[in-house]
Amino acid sequence: MPSLLDPIRVVLCATSHPGNIGASARAMQTMGLSRLVLVNPQRYPDADADAMAAGASATLGATRVAASLDEALAGATLAIGFSGRPREFAGTVLPVRAAMQEALRYAASGEVALVFGTEMSGLSNAELSRCQIVATIPAVPDFGSLNLAAAVQVAAYELRVAAFGDTVWTAPTFEPATQEEIERMFDQGERALTALDFLRPENPKRLLPRLRRLFSRARLEKEEVNILRGILARIEERVQKGWRRGN
Amino acid sequence: MPSLLDPIRVVLCATSHPGNIGASARAMQTMGLSRLVLVNPQRYPDADADAMAAGASATLGATRVAASLDEALAGATLAIGFSGRPREFAGTVLPVRAAMQEALRYAASGEVALVFGTEMSGLSNAELSRCQIVATIPAVPDFGSLNLAAAVQVAAYELRVAAFGDTVWTAPTFEPATQEEIERMFDQGERALTALDFLRPENPKRLLPRLRRLFSRARLEKEEVNILRGILARIEERVQKGWRRGN
Repeated sequence: MPSLLDPIRVVLCATSHPGNIGASARAMQTMGLSRLVLVNPQRYPDADADAMAAGASATLGATRVAASLDEALAGATLAIGFSGRPREFAGTVLPVRAAMQEALRYAASGEVALVFGTEMSGLSNAELSRCQIVATIPAVPDFGSLNLAAAVQVAAYELRVAAFGDTVWTAPTFEPATQEEIERMFDQGERALTALDFLRPENPKRLLPRLRRLFSRARLEKEEVNILRGILARIEERVQKGWRRGN
Repeated sequence: MPSLLDPIRVVLCATSHPGNIGASARAMQTMGLSRLVLVNPQRYPDADADAMAAGASATLGATRVAASLDEALAGATLAIGFSGRPREFAGTVLPVRAAMQEALRYAASGEVALVFGTEMSGLSNAELSRCQIVATIPAVPDFGSLNLAAAVQVAAYELRVAAFGDTVWTAPTFEPATQEEIERMFDQGERALTALDFLRPENPKRLLPRLRRLFSRARLEKEEVNILRGILARIEERVQKGWRRGN
């Protein structure tokens, strides 16, 4: 099935640890990215890459190895480099969220590359100069930087949210109660609490609104209303019959 | 320095791979979270945890081990569980972004716990029932799930953005050109291109606006204007003197 994210590739430059290649492939596949390009990886293919890819063997299996960054960027109309401290970069520096929105905009009509540097030092100035935008992931200023695959995960996540939103489509497994059902419950509750001598008919003002607030916030389900009404019915019954045990 | 994020702890339940504990500590520390609690970890302490924590030894060193989830949640007024498929959960399910905004709101007046399940199967229904909110990270529906530490990274990133925004505070390392400098450059450019016979005085309409658009988009720096004016001056000089080499 074609996807808005198809024109977007991830380029990893001179990766030291093959585990990070596998973990990046997994991070990509969870978010629907499938095109991984490696420039001069230190060790690849490697068992550590396979292990960290976990179920993402489709993405890892389709990985290309390029001899240079230029080769990896061939065909792309926008290259976005990731850098934690883009001080030397004269171009546009954007937070990752805005950068991924821009990536998506370009992906509508061309190819886009997200470029990540080597683990220890990130992208070199020469590599950054191939990029039109630098994306930076907000982080604590005085602490090192994100793990490579963690940075790929955050970027891929932001791309997915930019492309498809983050609405949670969970089918409602439980049936919500209607307003009438809830009102009938409150009527019964008022009777039961009055019978209990807990609600004083001359001054009911604070209690009932507080209970309404609680149950409104909880957004009651049909079955919950039935359970609560069962408890209330039992209270009324016990008050009428007297409270002796075993009654 | 006290931080908005101080009241927020991360709870990892029954983690299988100590590497994920270390990687989670690193993910937390990059975003300014420092309180990690482990419930029944399979192997901890462990050299793999230390290795994956990289520079985050402060967070890993302060990690607590709890005997039960209830112990790990003690004192918290909000527990947010992470789940890829929260079908069984009857409570509020939010995308991670909205859930982390809610976490921050509660952190203003109490303690908050972010709860992550074991690698293979996530949080059990019993564990989820201890949480008031389930957070879900948008992902491809038919592919497994995020690596544990990758999920912690996305959550911690969203918390940081919720708390501190994602504005990029890079000092402008280059001095932008003023409007007058740019207008003088265009005047000179018009002269030079006319001298070159490239710009036709009778129909200059399309060329100059296109060039204006290009340079406006690029947001010129002072030094770049100087370089371009140097090129234009050289063109004018060569046209006047004739184009012979070595002139």
